[in-house]
Amino acid sequence: MNENIIAYETVDLCDNDECVIIIDQTKLPGKMELIRLSTAQEIWDAIYLLKVRGAPAIGVAAAFGLYVLSRQIAKDETEFDAFYDKFMEQKKYLDSARPTAVNLAWALNRMDRVCRQAHEDGKSVAEIVEILGEEAREIKEEDIRVCKSIGEYGLSLVKPGDGILTHCNAGQLATCKYGTATAPIYLGQERGYKFRVFADETRPLLQGARLTAYELSSAGVDVTLICDNMSGMVMKNGWINAVFVGCDRVAANGDVANKIGTSVVAAVAKQYGVPFYVCAPTSTIDLDTPTGAEITIEQRPPEEVTEMWYKERMAPEGVKVFNPAFDVTDHELITAIVTEHGIARAPFTESLLKCKGKN
Amino acid sequence: MNENIIAYETVDLCDNDECVIIIDQTKLPGKMELIRLSTAQEIWDAIYLLKVRGAPAIGVAAAFGLYVLSRQIAKDETEFDAFYDKFMEQKKYLDSARPTAVNLAWALNRMDRVCRQAHEDGKSVAEIVEILGEEAREIKEEDIRVCKSIGEYGLSLVKPGDGILTHCNAGQLATCKYGTATAPIYLGQERGYKFRVFADETRPLLQGARLTAYELSSAGVDVTLICDNMSGMVMKNGWINAVFVGCDRVAANGDVANKIGTSVVAAVAKQYGVPFYVCAPTSTIDLDTPTGAEITIEQRPPEEVTEMWYKERMAPEGVKVFNPAFDVTDHELITAIVTEHGIARAPFTESLLKCKGKN
Repeated sequence: MNENIIAYETVDLCDNDECVIIIDQTKLPGKMELIRLSTAQEIWDAIYLLKVRGAPAIGVAAAFGLYVLSRQIAKDETEFDAFYDKFMEQKKYLDSARPTAVNLAWALNRMDRVCRQAHEDGKSVAEIVEILGEEAREIKEEDIRVCKSIGEYGLSLVKPGDGILTHCNAGQLATCKYGTATAPIYLGQERGYKFRVFADETRPLLQGARLTAYELSSAGVDVTLICDNMSGMVMKNGWINAVFVGCDRVAANGDVANKIGTSVVAAVAKQYGVPFYVCAPTSTIDLDTPTGAEITIEQRPPEEVTEMWYKERMAPEGVKVFNPAFDVTDHELITAIVTEHGIARAPFTESLLKCKGKN
Repeated sequence: MNENIIAYETVDLCDNDECVIIIDQTKLPGKMELIRLSTAQEIWDAIYLLKVRGAPAIGVAAAFGLYVLSRQIAKDETEFDAFYDKFMEQKKYLDSARPTAVNLAWALNRMDRVCRQAHEDGKSVAEIVEILGEEAREIKEEDIRVCKSIGEYGLSLVKPGDGILTHCNAGQLATCKYGTATAPIYLGQERGYKFRVFADETRPLLQGARLTAYELSSAGVDVTLICDNMSGMVMKNGWINAVFVGCDRVAANGDVANKIGTSVVAAVAKQYGVPFYVCAPTSTIDLDTPTGAEITIEQRPPEEVTEMWYKERMAPEGVKVFNPAFDVTDHELITAIVTEHGIARAPFTESLLKCKGKN
């Protein structure tokens, strides 16, 4: 029905490595548009304005972005100290675009480590820039391998014909391929599992309606769109055998920060006895964060709720709005956390450490 | 900030009793517009298209509507049998506008009983029409008394400064005055309780954003708008001391049909130990319906979800949509059902019978 999303890369480098190319996800599902980002401001805006979103895709976009900016810096600065000052300035700036997803800082820190290591190894600034490019590409390749592995583990938790509910978009558009929460769905689709998928629309920014329903239906998956508040009814009707969601950060105790509303789906799943699975690349597991209480939750502008997408108000002028982008799901509501290194179950403090330790 | 909604009647008769006047709620919050309904088609459309909505207000609109139509029928038909045939035809037509709210059928059946009784008492068609007018006005006056009484009982369940969450609109706009779920809030407001109210926006039709946030803020209540999927976070934050919702039909076992998403709020409230109160005029208690499983749930057009309010698609073409208008909340998730005759608690099969018996 739509152009098959699978034909495009969510995040890529342009041929000469002078810009990052992304699908502008704010234009979907109406328009499939690729945009090129070459300045720090453009890259920051793309992340802040959710043109690229989803924790893994943000990480790759930031790594590619920092590499593109490093190439620009290296044109003026051939001495390492001067280069590194500007490199760190750009790194800090990109890191400020969104506070909740750990992958943004994770990818940027990884680029920083590689940069410093290369300098210690006696590489020139020009060589360092090449190494940064290789690292950014490796982050992307890893993401694809990781998602596929999560898909295999996730697929072991369901059976052909199952009903699956997902929230927000933890799909190909949130990663580089397969997605995290959608990875079992895509792999199942390749193997004839014929899942019946229900996609929460995910207010306020409608990533479920605009992105998940789009990418799954374009790949031929049987997907039904529901409003977030219909999860109770579809579960009560017995239509859902498993919930798969992605995540932005997993605390050491298994508490999970993910798109606002995830904790609501988890409470409803518990009520109806439906297993609730979080698909988490180990890069999103943050052992330095003891519990969900220490995770900063991004608050976003009220207009996202009151004006929706078309600049006509849907709520009275001046009404107060609470608009958190994420929430924290208590580990006790989570059946399992599916990583690329296996399936972690309670007690998560031990099982996550084990998964994370395999890196 | 807005024109005070309290200055208007949600449903009224025009001076000469030749039409029903309602606030066109589909125009809120942008525009406060009164419309006049004088044909059966106009009245049916107003109910079906949610220009007037909320179980009690629908009941009053239908009673006023059937009275206005009876006056028209009586101009041609002065013999009872011919009058009654057409009366029943219009009654059946109005009754078909929406299937879930019991008040629609309840009010129309009450008008029918009065009509037949007046005939048995030897009244003329002209006299019967007068009696129908009195009955319709009495249904409205009763609604106001009932809501006030629910408010008093509801107020006994909370304390000054409490945080209250409500879903959809069970406010003045859903009734004739006070509302049901909002009645404790309005009475508390008059008495300086300073509640902090959180209003779920209530997708897909946004009655919470458009109507509840509008009417509460116009009355000076401290109200904060949230998306439906944020209920988990505000409860986890400890901001909510009680949930008050309205209802469209209460089954004999205490299962409650109300706006889609109500059961989700109930499951979340249970998870966080927040009391969940349903405000129910006894007219919505349907002892002939044993459990929620027997309640017909209205399915509405997919475009309500995919096109929102501005006719631009927010989801891909052709995607399947599940769009139930209501859901059923299991009685085990309900702390209490607040009626005008007192507060019913489990076992509801007994307590509801007791409340209902006081009519």
